Amino acid sequence: MSPTTEILTAERILEATEEVLRRHGPAKATVVDVARALGVSHGSVYRHFRTKAALREAVTKRWLDRMFVTLTAITADESRAPETRLRDWLAALFEAKRRKAGDDPELFATYMVLTAEAGDVAFEHIADLTGQLTRIIEAGVASGDFTVPDPRTSAVAVFHATGRFHDPGYHRVWERPGAQEDFTALVDLLLAGLRAPAA
Amino acid sequence: MSPTTEILTAERILEATEEVLRRHGPAKATVVDVARALGVSHGSVYRHFRTKAALREAVTKRWLDRMFVTLTAITADESRAPETRLRDWLAALFEAKRRKAGDDPELFATYMVLTAEAGDVAFEHIADLTGQLTRIIEAGVASGDFTVPDPRTSAVAVFHATGRFHDPGYHRVWERPGAQEDFTALVDLLLAGLRAPAA
Repeated sequence: MSPTTEILTAERILEATEEVLRRHGPAKATVVDVARALGVSHGSVYRHFRTKAALREAVTKRWLDRMFVTLTAITADESRAPETRLRDWLAALFEAKRRKAGDDPELFATYMVLTAEAGDVAFEHIADLTGQLTRIIEAGVASGDFTVPDPRTSAVAVFHATGRFHDPGYHRVWERPGAQEDFTALVDLLLAGLRAPAA
Repeated sequence: MSPTTEILTAERILEATEEVLRRHGPAKATVVDVARALGVSHGSVYRHFRTKAALREAVTKRWLDRMFVTLTAITADESRAPETRLRDWLAALFEAKRRKAGDDPELFATYMVLTAEAGDVAFEHIADLTGQLTRIIEAGVASGDFTVPDPRTSAVAVFHATGRFHDPGYHRVWERPGAQEDFTALVDLLLAGLRAPAA
């Protein structure tokens, strides 16, 4: 047995937890199931995650964070004009959510339950996302492309305005004909609003 | 007994249906309950509404239409500038939904179920609302206040962008501190977008 398969890391526990959640659903998945899947005692799992709630929160955070990698890269990519960056960022968020909902609906439904449960994790995730949006809008104000008085307020407004294309509650409309056109029309309107001189 | 209490009108049936729904909830309310509340046979109810589904659709449509009265008046009020009309219209829609959710949560939950059931009724309702938004935006284009190429596309974008403040799925955020400020920031951004000259 190689050392990598022997060492029980938090990451291995989280991988197994996701698999157990996929198989049993959020209502039935237990720490004992996770321990069994790993061939360890449930005490070993509790040494990494002190409670079942902590484990569920950690797996939810991991799932949300994975979606982040592309978004963080776009936020930091100064080779793109702020307007392009904002458009690409919103499109990447929509695409990531749509792909997750479409490719693995059971796991997506599971994470909808977990995200609703783990209010703090979801709250921090949203704060991180609007933080990225704020930085892109600030870059646009600095370059003179955008003319808004308060980038943070505009970032929150953009995030709220695009809820239809990232809020899991809307996942049923993401595959409808016209969804992509609706998304583009909405982003066009928001970009025009950010560019516009104050009234 | 006065004639008005004797004649079994569609309106009296719908009033009684709403009361029965409020009391029993959408899962349990039956046509027999409605007939009993009115002191008539269920055959008399069926003479007005041929099926239970038709009755439920009609009561849903009535509930949605009542919300409309104010919105229709605002749409038609040419004494207000298009921008004011749009702002007032969106505020009236948010306010109507928030009031319904806050004043009578059980009935609101019931209508959330019924609206999801009666897909066609909800679809027509949304088409009516975006039709009103289209007329307001057209008026703004005609007056030179707005500069968008396709008022209908913009109207749908505005409706989608403000979903957080009228989609029943969001009713929990409507009473949160800051909801009114979030709404105002979003509407400001959308109005700036409608005003902006094309890029």
